[in-house]
Amino acid sequence: MDQSERLSRPKVDAIETILGKPFSVLDDGFVRVVDYMGDDAAIVLAARVSYGAGTKKVQEDSALIRYLMRHHHTTPFEMCEIKFHVRVPMDTWRQWIRHRTASVNEYSTRYSLAIDASQRTPETAWRLQSTENRQGSSGFLDSKAGANLSATEDELQRQARKVYEERLAAGVAREQARKDLPLSTYTEAYWKVDLHNLLNFLQLRMHKHAQAEIRSYAAIIGQEIVAKWVPTVWQAFLDYRDQAVTFSRMEASIVAAIAAGKQDHAKSLAEQFGLLNRNPDGSLKANRERRELQEKLSMMGLTFNWT
Amino acid sequence: MDQSERLSRPKVDAIETILGKPFSVLDDGFVRVVDYMGDDAAIVLAARVSYGAGTKKVQEDSALIRYLMRHHHTTPFEMCEIKFHVRVPMDTWRQWIRHRTASVNEYSTRYSLAIDASQRTPETAWRLQSTENRQGSSGFLDSKAGANLSATEDELQRQARKVYEERLAAGVAREQARKDLPLSTYTEAYWKVDLHNLLNFLQLRMHKHAQAEIRSYAAIIGQEIVAKWVPTVWQAFLDYRDQAVTFSRMEASIVAAIAAGKQDHAKSLAEQFGLLNRNPDGSLKANRERRELQEKLSMMGLTFNWT
Amino acid sequence: MDQSERLSRPKVDAIETILGKPFSVLDDGFVRVVDYMGDDAAIVLAARVSYGAGTKKVQEDSALIRYLMRHHHTTPFEMCEIKFHVRVPMDTWRQWIRHRTASVNEYSTRYSLAIDASQRTPETAWRLQSTENRQGSSGFLDSKAGANLSATEDELQRQARKVYEERLAAGVAREQARKDLPLSTYTEAYWKVDLHNLLNFLQLRMHKHAQAEIRSYAAIIGQEIVAKWVPTVWQAFLDYRDQAVTFSRMEASIVAAIAAGKQDHAKSLAEQFGLLNRNPDGSLKANRERRELQEKLSMMGLTFNWT
Amino acid sequence: MDQSERLSRPKVDAIETILGKPFSVLDDGFVRVVDYMGDDAAIVLAARVSYGAGTKKVQEDSALIRYLMRHHHTTPFEMCEIKFHVRVPMDTWRQWIRHRTASVNEYSTRYSLAIDASQRTPETAWRLQSTENRQGSSGFLDSKAGANLSATEDELQRQARKVYEERLAAGVAREQARKDLPLSTYTEAYWKVDLHNLLNFLQLRMHKHAQAEIRSYAAIIGQEIVAKWVPTVWQAFLDYRDQAVTFSRMEASIVAAIAAGKQDHAKSLAEQFGLLNRNPDGSLKANRERRELQEKLSMMGLTFNWT
Repeated sequence: MDQSERLSRPKVDAIETILGKPFSVLDDGFVRVVDYMGDDAAIVLAARVSYGAGTKKVQEDSALIRYLMRHHHTTPFEMCEIKFHVRVPMDTWRQWIRHRTASVNEYSTRYSLAIDASQRTPETAWRLQSTENRQGSSGFLDSKAGANLSATEDELQRQARKVYEERLAAGVAREQARKDLPLSTYTEAYWKVDLHNLLNFLQLRMHKHAQAEIRSYAAIIGQEIVAKWVPTVWQAFLDYRDQAVTFSRMEASIVAAIAAGKQDHAKSLAEQFGLLNRNPDGSLKANRERRELQEKLSMMGLTFNWT
Repeated sequence: MDQSERLSRPKVDAIETILGKPFSVLDDGFVRVVDYMGDDAAIVLAARVSYGAGTKKVQEDSALIRYLMRHHHTTPFEMCEIKFHVRVPMDTWRQWIRHRTASVNEYSTRYSLAIDASQRTPETAWRLQSTENRQGSSGFLDSKAGANLSATEDELQRQARKVYEERLAAGVAREQARKDLPLSTYTEAYWKVDLHNLLNFLQLRMHKHAQAEIRSYAAIIGQEIVAKWVPTVWQAFLDYRDQAVTFSRMEASIVAAIAAGKQDHAKSLAEQFGLLNRNPDGSLKANRERRELQEKLSMMGLTFNWT
Repeated sequence: MDQSERLSRPKVDAIETILGKPFSVLDDGFVRVVDYMGDDAAIVLAARVSYGAGTKKVQEDSALIRYLMRHHHTTPFEMCEIKFHVRVPMDTWRQWIRHRTASVNEYSTRYSLAIDASQRTPETAWRLQSTENRQGSSGFLDSKAGANLSATEDELQRQARKVYEERLAAGVAREQARKDLPLSTYTEAYWKVDLHNLLNFLQLRMHKHAQAEIRSYAAIIGQEIVAKWVPTVWQAFLDYRDQAVTFSRMEASIVAAIAAGKQDHAKSLAEQFGLLNRNPDGSLKANRERRELQEKLSMMGLTFNWT
Repeated sequence: MDQSERLSRPKVDAIETILGKPFSVLDDGFVRVVDYMGDDAAIVLAARVSYGAGTKKVQEDSALIRYLMRHHHTTPFEMCEIKFHVRVPMDTWRQWIRHRTASVNEYSTRYSLAIDASQRTPETAWRLQSTENRQGSSGFLDSKAGANLSATEDELQRQARKVYEERLAAGVAREQARKDLPLSTYTEAYWKVDLHNLLNFLQLRMHKHAQAEIRSYAAIIGQEIVAKWVPTVWQAFLDYRDQAVTFSRMEASIVAAIAAGKQDHAKSLAEQFGLLNRNPDGSLKANRERRELQEKLSMMGLTFNWT
């Protein structure tokens, strides 16, 4: 090893130009990058320490990154780190904070006045309860009914703030005065996370089953920030994780039968796996796993007639 | 090693008798033990694997546990695990969840109706903002003013619930309808943690600077549960952590001077360390670090005249 | 909530009967269960707290567990915990300890004499370097050459132990005397981990790319222990993770084309994705990603002619 | 908030000048900084997000950092991150890797040839087993006896390498050929950790009870790197953690009695706490806790006559 070897810090121009810039999210939230460590190349360097002198052939960095992503060799992705300053409704923050492998400093409403802003819902943005997914939403309330709800919301938020301020005026401690603030109240935090854990966060929170609010944060972080910071990693993430399709043991055998042109065998497997249970009248019972398989087949442009 | 060796699970009678029993906290919260793994002896066994054949002398378990606690040999304490079911206001949960080294399943208000209970504040329980500690409280509001605040609180909580239910009735998704619930709304969770990390939680949350609400949970967990589950560990924790006194490098030198009867030297050290800065009129400036030292000296029954 | 509710600890008979029983691994290693917390039902209970009052319909536990596994709802699996006592060559332990989300107490060779046992290699067990996989092995050395290596190994291990003991006899500290012990020396440890992280460990270490030694430990843990402890989880793990097949974005489009009977389109996609680069003589270049896709197709009983 | 606000990355000149420079440790090891994120000020910024608008008074950064350190407000220290490239004997690495809250990429001897270097012990560097501390060393073997041990060590290391190379020459897989390499063999790794966890590492590994080898790495990291990177944090760490003195509940009461000039009371407390048990001949029994208290008293320049 050359004792005179010197390094300079990896620098990513596309991130430097947005450092500190707040990307707006929701009506009054934002995400901004405060600092970052590493780039695409830093991952390769770290991986090659673990590969050492063995990597004598010139192997393209991109190919290595894609290989690591494909084979779940996740530790090199921990070698990049990013720090955000975010402004988020507390309700969304409750979901965000469930990701434990990150460092957090949140604005303290014991020490300081609560931020005087709550997430408001426009009259066209009230989402209907999904009938298919107990924990999801689907479609929107009509704007007239929505207008009523928005007006009531506004009133409730004002009332809650007024109560908060009356308590403070009466001398009540901030830590207690805040107790009835609505979950829609904005909070701010520093959030620092390594790239591997950030990708896990994005995979879960960009998912169509994630709640709309946190999805909008995840989308910004993914598309506006990570895509610029580590473009090779981002593309590999899309190709091998986000847009990959996984078939269970049972599904794989059904797909194999379909692909081999054995429709009857596919059907018989589906029956055997309990996907084709029937109602007394002979119609197919609703079955979540069959519906999921159906969705995957559709994504791949395949059709299959279960009946 | 004897291949016929068999084990039976460690069982702690004092915990068995309270398994599932809810200990009330606040007006509508609780903590109950759902399951546990290990006991005092399990810590010793784990530590002795790491000590192996070397521990041939009979060494009393208690002495070993106390030694481990004293010397921050923390890994054997991770060998005990406990699982709680808790009911906590969301405001308190926001602090609780900051402890990342635990496993959590929280009641989902995306999937289910929000719990119809909020923490209410009795008229005599409104705490005043501390003047000494920006993030604390000190003393209580008089009960007449308190009665007004309690009435307003009641009204606000009712209003918030009404709004929540109106939204649901209008077909709004649960995940969105909940957005303006007050932070005082109760939530429930399974919370599973190892003993080492539980002691860290207790040390922070039983501390006098912790907020009253989470302190009442911590006190119950410590005194009613941990003290029964692993009594030797609990006593060692009190002796070597909770009731221990730490002096900084500077404080240690001042205490040494006091203990050696060298009051003048003590004072000169305090000056040198910036603890005795003075106002223009010659009086001592307020100084947090001096106040902290003063508190420790008082705890130890020592007096010192700084002037 | 019924204040008189009491719980008793979940107990799994199939584990109770093997508690403490050492399962042999390699020539002198073992794995034994020391303690456990929870069972299949404990996962359901924890998940339903997070689902709360919403799960009023009787939903079969097994279906819920399989749903959680399928959709990567991993937190309920953290609600089960298991503690092992293991005996492992240090070389294998170096890989094992890379799994950070576990609690560990290892036998201390600073405090005690190093265990007087090293993993020995029978003459028929010397594995050849894989030519396909730089970090793998494939096939065995012939037993005659193997016999030589085994003899040399025996000699080296004896020599290393002799040197160790000479140092101790000369008064050298154990912490330093151990420095030239071979990596094959056995160590012992308590290893405690939750079920979610254990499944991650098993998925990686039961994988055909894992080294043979750690694979034999993982196989025992999976098949002899986890399968008995939480049989529903184990089956779900096999169905949805271990034996699932994942196709990348590119692979999925190729498989879709194959399944739709569009061989030419499949080939053209493969070309476009760089899987069919050719040598100057027109033959296909070796390509790792194509080989991986080929393996998945074979697993599914599909054939495809790339040329 | 000013939407046009832009940031530039914090830069620490004293670290920039040593980026990549290997600091030699042991006979063939090194530590070098590969990258870093944040500085003293970054901690203050993160802490003030959690303090928000409340910190309107100009408060000196240093005072805040020292306050955070003193009161175990550890999360802001997680906001700085550092990445090292290290070369360490595997025996030392076995201790290093026990710190779980770090990211690691280690040189792979499955993929590549093992590094051809082992830590050698000069004839004057063989340490004697401590008689006081079962897991420590104290003093050195005389150089004549040491010379013998060094010669034997050299021979054993050569032999082990020869065996390794013979196996490779016979076609044995690298993953298996390495199995009898001595623990003294050097390995290399990328090691990335946040400042809070690095300080925990340093406190444990700079401690006089830590093994000499890892202490030399910790000393370099602390004194040559951290001290330059975040000088305010480093001084606070020395003042409030590394050189602080902690008295247990029992010790504090004894010290209080001494400081109050009540020697008899101090003695009676010590008896009550079991520190003064006697042998049949009336002499004091050895007692580890008394010895520890004695050491702390000495550190503070206090003397106490136990008899």
